[in-house]
Amino acid sequence: MKLPGQEELEAACACENVPVGQLDSGPSSGPCPDDPSDTGSRELGPPEDPPLFLQLNELLGWPQTLEWREMGRWVLFEEKLEVDAGRWSAPHVPTLALPSLQKLRSLLAEGLVLLDCPAQNLLELVEQVTRVESLSPELRGQLQALLLQRPQHHTQTTGSRPCWGPAQSRKAAHNKEAPMQQQCQSPLRQKLPPGAEAGAVLAGELGFLAQPLAAFVRLRDPVWLGPLTEVPLPSRFFCLLLGPPMLGKGYHELGRAAAVLLSDPHFQWSVRRASNLHDLLTALDAFLEEVTVLPPGRWDPTARIPPPRCLPSRHKRPPLHLQKVKGLSVPHRTQAEDRHRNGPLAPSPELQRTGRLFGGLVQDVRRKASWYPSDFSDALHPQCVSAVLYIYLATVTNAITFGGLLGDATDGAQGVLESLLGTAVAGAAFCLMAGQPLTVLSSTGPVLVFERLLFAFCRDYSLDYLPFRLWVGIWVAVFCLALVATEASVLVRYFTRFTEEGFCALISLIFIYDAVGKMLNLAHAYPIQRPGSLAYGCLCQFPGPGGEQNLYFTARNPNPDHPSTQDLGLVNASLLPPHECVQQGGYPRGPGCHTVPDIAFFSLLLFLTSFLFAIALKHMKTSRFFPSVVRKVLSDFSSILAILLGCGLDALLGLAMPKLMVPREFKPTLPGRGWLVPPFGANPWWLSVAAALPALLLSILIFMDQQITAVILNRVEYRLRKGAGFHLDLFCVALLMLLTSVLGLPWYVSATVLSLAHMDSLRRESRACAPGEPHSFLGIREQRLTGLAVFTLTGVSIFLAPVLKFIPMPVLYGIFLYMGVAALSSIQFMKRVQLMLMPAKHQPDLLLLRHVPLSRVHLFTAIQLACLGLLWIIKSTPAAIIFPLMLLGLVGVRKALEWVFSPQELLWLDELMPEEERNVPEKGLEPGHSFSGSDSEDSELMYQPKAPEINISVN
Amino acid sequence: MKLPGQEELEAACACENVPVGQLDSGPSSGPCPDDPSDTGSRELGPPEDPPLFLQLNELLGWPQTLEWREMGRWVLFEEKLEVDAGRWSAPHVPTLALPSLQKLRSLLAEGLVLLDCPAQNLLELVEQVTRVESLSPELRGQLQALLLQRPQHHTQTTGSRPCWGPAQSRKAAHNKEAPMQQQCQSPLRQKLPPGAEAGAVLAGELGFLAQPLAAFVRLRDPVWLGPLTEVPLPSRFFCLLLGPPMLGKGYHELGRAAAVLLSDPHFQWSVRRASNLHDLLTALDAFLEEVTVLPPGRWDPTARIPPPRCLPSRHKRPPLHLQKVKGLSVPHRTQAEDRHRNGPLAPSPELQRTGRLFGGLVQDVRRKASWYPSDFSDALHPQCVSAVLYIYLATVTNAITFGGLLGDATDGAQGVLESLLGTAVAGAAFCLMAGQPLTVLSSTGPVLVFERLLFAFCRDYSLDYLPFRLWVGIWVAVFCLALVATEASVLVRYFTRFTEEGFCALISLIFIYDAVGKMLNLAHAYPIQRPGSLAYGCLCQFPGPGGEQNLYFTARNPNPDHPSTQDLGLVNASLLPPHECVQQGGYPRGPGCHTVPDIAFFSLLLFLTSFLFAIALKHMKTSRFFPSVVRKVLSDFSSILAILLGCGLDALLGLAMPKLMVPREFKPTLPGRGWLVPPFGANPWWLSVAAALPALLLSILIFMDQQITAVILNRVEYRLRKGAGFHLDLFCVALLMLLTSVLGLPWYVSATVLSLAHMDSLRRESRACAPGEPHSFLGIREQRLTGLAVFTLTGVSIFLAPVLKFIPMPVLYGIFLYMGVAALSSIQFMKRVQLMLMPAKHQPDLLLLRHVPLSRVHLFTAIQLACLGLLWIIKSTPAAIIFPLMLLGLVGVRKALEWVFSPQELLWLDELMPEEERNVPEKGLEPGHSFSGSDSEDSELMYQPKAPEINISVN
Repeated sequence: MKLPGQEELEAACACENVPVGQLDSGPSSGPCPDDPSDTGSRELGPPEDPPLFLQLNELLGWPQTLEWREMGRWVLFEEKLEVDAGRWSAPHVPTLALPSLQKLRSLLAEGLVLLDCPAQNLLELVEQVTRVESLSPELRGQLQALLLQRPQHHTQTTGSRPCWGPAQSRKAAHNKEAPMQQQCQSPLRQKLPPGAEAGAVLAGELGFLAQPLAAFVRLRDPVWLGPLTEVPLPSRFFCLLLGPPMLGKGYHELGRAAAVLLSDPHFQWSVRRASNLHDLLTALDAFLEEVTVLPPGRWDPTARIPPPRCLPSRHKRPPLHLQKVKGLSVPHRTQAEDRHRNGPLAPSPELQRTGRLFGGLVQDVRRKASWYPSDFSDALHPQCVSAVLYIYLATVTNAITFGGLLGDATDGAQGVLESLLGTAVAGAAFCLMAGQPLTVLSSTGPVLVFERLLFAFCRDYSLDYLPFRLWVGIWVAVFCLALVATEASVLVRYFTRFTEEGFCALISLIFIYDAVGKMLNLAHAYPIQRPGSLAYGCLCQFPGPGGEQNLYFTARNPNPDHPSTQDLGLVNASLLPPHECVQQGGYPRGPGCHTVPDIAFFSLLLFLTSFLFAIALKHMKTSRFFPSVVRKVLSDFSSILAILLGCGLDALLGLAMPKLMVPREFKPTLPGRGWLVPPFGANPWWLSVAAALPALLLSILIFMDQQITAVILNRVEYRLRKGAGFHLDLFCVALLMLLTSVLGLPWYVSATVLSLAHMDSLRRESRACAPGEPHSFLGIREQRLTGLAVFTLTGVSIFLAPVLKFIPMPVLYGIFLYMGVAALSSIQFMKRVQLMLMPAKHQPDLLLLRHVPLSRVHLFTAIQLACLGLLWIIKSTPAAIIFPLMLLGLVGVRKALEWVFSPQELLWLDELMPEEERNVPEKGLEPGHSFSGSDSEDSELMYQPKAPEINISVN
Repeated sequence: MKLPGQEELEAACACENVPVGQLDSGPSSGPCPDDPSDTGSRELGPPEDPPLFLQLNELLGWPQTLEWREMGRWVLFEEKLEVDAGRWSAPHVPTLALPSLQKLRSLLAEGLVLLDCPAQNLLELVEQVTRVESLSPELRGQLQALLLQRPQHHTQTTGSRPCWGPAQSRKAAHNKEAPMQQQCQSPLRQKLPPGAEAGAVLAGELGFLAQPLAAFVRLRDPVWLGPLTEVPLPSRFFCLLLGPPMLGKGYHELGRAAAVLLSDPHFQWSVRRASNLHDLLTALDAFLEEVTVLPPGRWDPTARIPPPRCLPSRHKRPPLHLQKVKGLSVPHRTQAEDRHRNGPLAPSPELQRTGRLFGGLVQDVRRKASWYPSDFSDALHPQCVSAVLYIYLATVTNAITFGGLLGDATDGAQGVLESLLGTAVAGAAFCLMAGQPLTVLSSTGPVLVFERLLFAFCRDYSLDYLPFRLWVGIWVAVFCLALVATEASVLVRYFTRFTEEGFCALISLIFIYDAVGKMLNLAHAYPIQRPGSLAYGCLCQFPGPGGEQNLYFTARNPNPDHPSTQDLGLVNASLLPPHECVQQGGYPRGPGCHTVPDIAFFSLLLFLTSFLFAIALKHMKTSRFFPSVVRKVLSDFSSILAILLGCGLDALLGLAMPKLMVPREFKPTLPGRGWLVPPFGANPWWLSVAAALPALLLSILIFMDQQITAVILNRVEYRLRKGAGFHLDLFCVALLMLLTSVLGLPWYVSATVLSLAHMDSLRRESRACAPGEPHSFLGIREQRLTGLAVFTLTGVSIFLAPVLKFIPMPVLYGIFLYMGVAALSSIQFMKRVQLMLMPAKHQPDLLLLRHVPLSRVHLFTAIQLACLGLLWIIKSTPAAIIFPLMLLGLVGVRKALEWVFSPQELLWLDELMPEEERNVPEKGLEPGHSFSGSDSEDSELMYQPKAPEINISVN
């Protein structure tokens, strides 16, 4: 068994002062899906009960001008009316004083409790409520008139000026339309789901009462009670708490207590089913047993606690007490919840071995075929249009930058055109055929490293690159098909977090290293002119009248080869700039003619600007400024905007910066080759057999790259409904391998970052939200159309050369640096590396640190660092070709760690491998069981479903 | 009356997800001084009670291997043992379940309560406690043996490996020395103040007991109970909670409840004075009445709440209930607390008008004279040494950069040498004479603006600048003396936050504008070479054998003046770089010889680097990385480190950057003038009279600049003991005005940022700190020695020219930008401007916004923005000379605002002016009184003493 909480690095406590989004970016900063059902209902109460809007109307102004005013409202959290400021407070966790709860209990015990009251309107209700013995008929009349008085609501209109309810002017009360209209405009109404009910609590001091008057009403049917509540909802509950003047703000607090009580899902559940006063009080007692108590000396009761990131989930609370009393059925845990508890990597049906040849593939195809029609019908949503635009821009940027790198690495054997074409063809084909249609194919870092090595090998031995590469591709396809046939993909269960992170960190580092390295290369190509440098001096020489060059060198200097130290006897020379000199038929002479000043520093500026700008825009998402739509756009398009800014700066200054080279014609980048790669070229025939060796290594690489990504995308927290297709995806990759090798296009596998971005842009979230409630995540729009559209557009981009040639290379390097840094900082490994630099007392309160001794955490991190260093060294030496094997070696290292760390430690630091799970006794997996329950806090925390977390393998 | 809370912009709730330090930097990010007494005692209990260390030892391992283990500890907050991780949890606010408190109450009610138990050691105590009827002698023996068993403590040693108590190996229990030694090493012991006492709670399940056994012991004298507690303190309380096995973690929670209860200051106070069980239970009930209750559906009880920034202060809690019962005296509010409640600007004695000529000055001198000897003896603390180093570096940087600006503005009439000399002389004199010895004198932005205007005026009318300036200075001194004589400084009470912020924002903007403007000037001076630019071409020409230059121009081009388009017939020319060319006796020719490439962009890079680096280092203070000492150093020296980084980068590349020009000789910057400025020079005599007019304006400026700073420095939250000296300070400024004018040095007034930094570096803070408790601020080391040392060192720096000439100017511009941005972002005004960009629902929960409608807040901000804009326009036009008058106009605008805003709104947005305070009824000042107590939350919040807040007026 796996515990889902194990991957929850952060203790899920919203009031730890960790700014949201600082720890994760991308999909992981989303809400924690605490409602595991896929139906879209939220945790407002047990599933069968409608959500309840509660409002506290307080009676103010005794004895002069009595009026009801809405002073607070609750759906999930409390909003308080800031009377002076005329606005609702930010939603916060309600805090109560214990005495007011106890006082409320005694009032209810002595007061009037009407369950299933048949009143059909406010008048009937008021009559029922005031039918109390202790009231004289005269008082009863007064009270009824008072209760029928229209309360003042505070509704915020779009303008910044607060708009008080029409009861502000008492005469407007006759107008029946206005409040209804106003109520309908309530922004809260639009947020609450249909079927929501209201509850009104009326409280206040009323001097003419001799003793407190309490009434609690549950209406048989929800009834529309006129303007009693701010939001036009039928009311289910009505609670009246009036009495003679009391010290302090007694009735306000009593009213709040009643409202908070009713807003509690368990209490609500019980009170909806209560049949008498005893049930009601039992429910209240059950509530009291569960409350959290903060000591007065250590907590200021007036402090407002912001809503936690995760609400306590239902199964953390004890079973309802009414059950004992009445035998009613309790809200049961759903199957989906159980799935959550079983953890993300509990062998899903996709990873069960069938034992037949191609059995997994057949199963995948069968499973996917049933969803195929819906894969197109599900795309009919406007969200998909914006997703297409966003993913298109990301994909095309990625393809272009990778194409540039590839062209660089292979001396132009492949280039941007091949990259764009390949991305379009492979991506579209994958979208149509694969098991995971949201996956975005891309050339990835390790594959690029491999191609670079392959090219270097061919160059060193004077081999024809593309034909050799064709055979490597053919062999890889064969090996991959063999892996599909033998259902090797079920082995992905051995790819634990340790492997994922090692792989991901390495790729990120390659990104960063490459980006910085390329920047330094630019500085070499365009050297800085220091005061003492020799790069001064340039003149323009024109041929003499007879066409011959009248240039006389007279040796004044021992070094006659160095023109700058020579005496020149010149005729027909001018100081025209080189460019104009050539135009006018002259020849630029001198070392100064070849230097282009200012380029190096401006490149650095562009590089840093695009990097920092992309980071800053990405963080806009969690900023307080601007409406959330604006922030989302800025954040989603951060890379594109950073590129545009860089291009703009470059265009403004008009320096001769190195630009992205895009072919202007639709023909292969390598001059003279056709689209089909010849099978042998100048290579001997036996090389086609020898290609099997590198192909074996590349197969391992492709398998790991593809499947690690697939595992991440299939994490249970993304709530994919249509299942995974590990075998089918690998099959598609194998076929595309063949196709791209024949056409001489780059090789493609699934790219984690782009695929996660794709999924993220297709999130389904609950719209109706109570104030303070995080959006709840419902799932992903799984379909094939967005991907198809993206890759079609990518194909069209091949003809965008006139636009793309304006992009300066340093800007793209900056974006690459950003991608590397973003990917690196998103993995738990880096967080553990950071822990090494923090004094113990400043470390964040991570669940991990609660359970594993710090020294063991550091040891684990150090081992990971050592592995990473070893991989880096191997990658940088001539032995780099065995690099894929070393990646596989990570799995072995992880296996060996079982001798160093206990299963319990590995459970927290990593995940368990399949065998370990079987070997470890059930009980041992739940930490803290060896010590009498002292850790039950954490085992409860572990039931909190994980928030989606990126484990980025950069494309 | 003023309410101190009015300036508390942030609602003081630690669990609002506002990262500490984001809102303020500098002194304001310090702790909130919730203990107003200056004695250094902290709010661990009412003042007379010693602080209590509480420890929960839990009995584990029933039935096999019984052992006591320390599972939790409390001083102010709870620390929980993370058993698996072998470390203490981060301190957090303890949360309890209500049933465990109730169960504890019933156990205590039935159990054994020994008050003033005379036991002298653990053995006697155990005997007393086990003398219960229900126990058979046999069981009693078993129990006694168990209670005498040594508990396991978790003490964290310096290494990262956890070090379990020696009870790990049971045999080591015989060794009596080891645990004592270990206890002494406890880091917690060193933090607790002398006189602290301990309390031990022992809880757990014990199968052989038939019914629960509860005992509560208050020892008559604190007794050393051996290794019972982790920290070697004498114990005062002992609580035993044992019983038969119970469901869940009952005893653990019971024990926690007992410990939390005992750690509550009110409960502790009561129980120390209780004489019987009834008193004990009354105290427990009083505790229960005050607890804050969080509803179970909205708050996860396992979430840990980090310690709030401010503990609830004592007077927020209701009076102790025991008082009613026993008539004991309650902890009374101290005088200092009352002072806090009365607010920072309640007319202090320094600002009371005496009505006599120079009466205020005489009073200041008299008050200060009594402190004078202590002003030197108080400096004997190592902290002063580091303060000197820090403030010296800041002062000298400031003086040099200002000197550079001044030299720039006055065409070298004054410069860096004058700035350094003047700072040293004026600063040292002020430290010796003034009323506020921590104040640092400096030239400030507005004075610089004024000098620039004065110089421009003299240049336009061909006047001698320095003599005219001498007369202005003389007149200013006269006017200022008149202001001292008439006690005008009491008018500073009209300088409300509105005026301060307008002034401060303007100065910050001038800083930013100047810094950016100077950078752009550099880019003009060193133009970028674009591809089409004509700045190409340079050759070196040598004189012919006869000395004449054989240079023939033949016109090939319609523009014969432009050498680059001309044909050159050259003899004896080479392409040597200009530098070498000149060395070898040639002449560099051509437009390319004069351009210095790469300087513009490298300047920009240095500018941005030093700016961003300074910001990043400043924020290191609140980072989690590195020990706090390292962070403090990095943060305190951020500007210096940024300058050093810039110089290092510059030295590395070796480009010909523009550098800081420092005179190499000790003589006035203006060639040919002596140190004494001649009284008339070439000016007519009547100019000495006419100088009175600009002097009037400058006097206003000086007065405002000086006194606004003084008001800020004398804020009550800095807890200055030796009082202010508004009149004396102005008197000193007047004298120094005279001196600096005669010597031709810059003019000086108090500089807020530097002075605040000086005070901040001399903070006295409580050392002994309970885990999770913020350091409490005790006051400032007010003395004169640090200032004297700083300015002596500044004087010595005049001879540091060989070092200072390595500083590139762009680096200094970057630091200036940083200072401007830091000052601008520290004022509340800017926070309100930011509010304008935030959607209402994302706005932080500011007290301000709880009380003033958003539209009114925005209106106030808009008016401030308009005033700022007007000031800026005036500053930029030829009317700039009346700028000081306009500054004074701010006070008038603020006065006029009384017609637009209600006093209550002004109270929240600004402060009240003296008259308003009198006009407004007492009750109206406490917001929310008009509505039945609905806002008592806030009026309570207002009693929280303000955290020191900077209102920076940049030097």
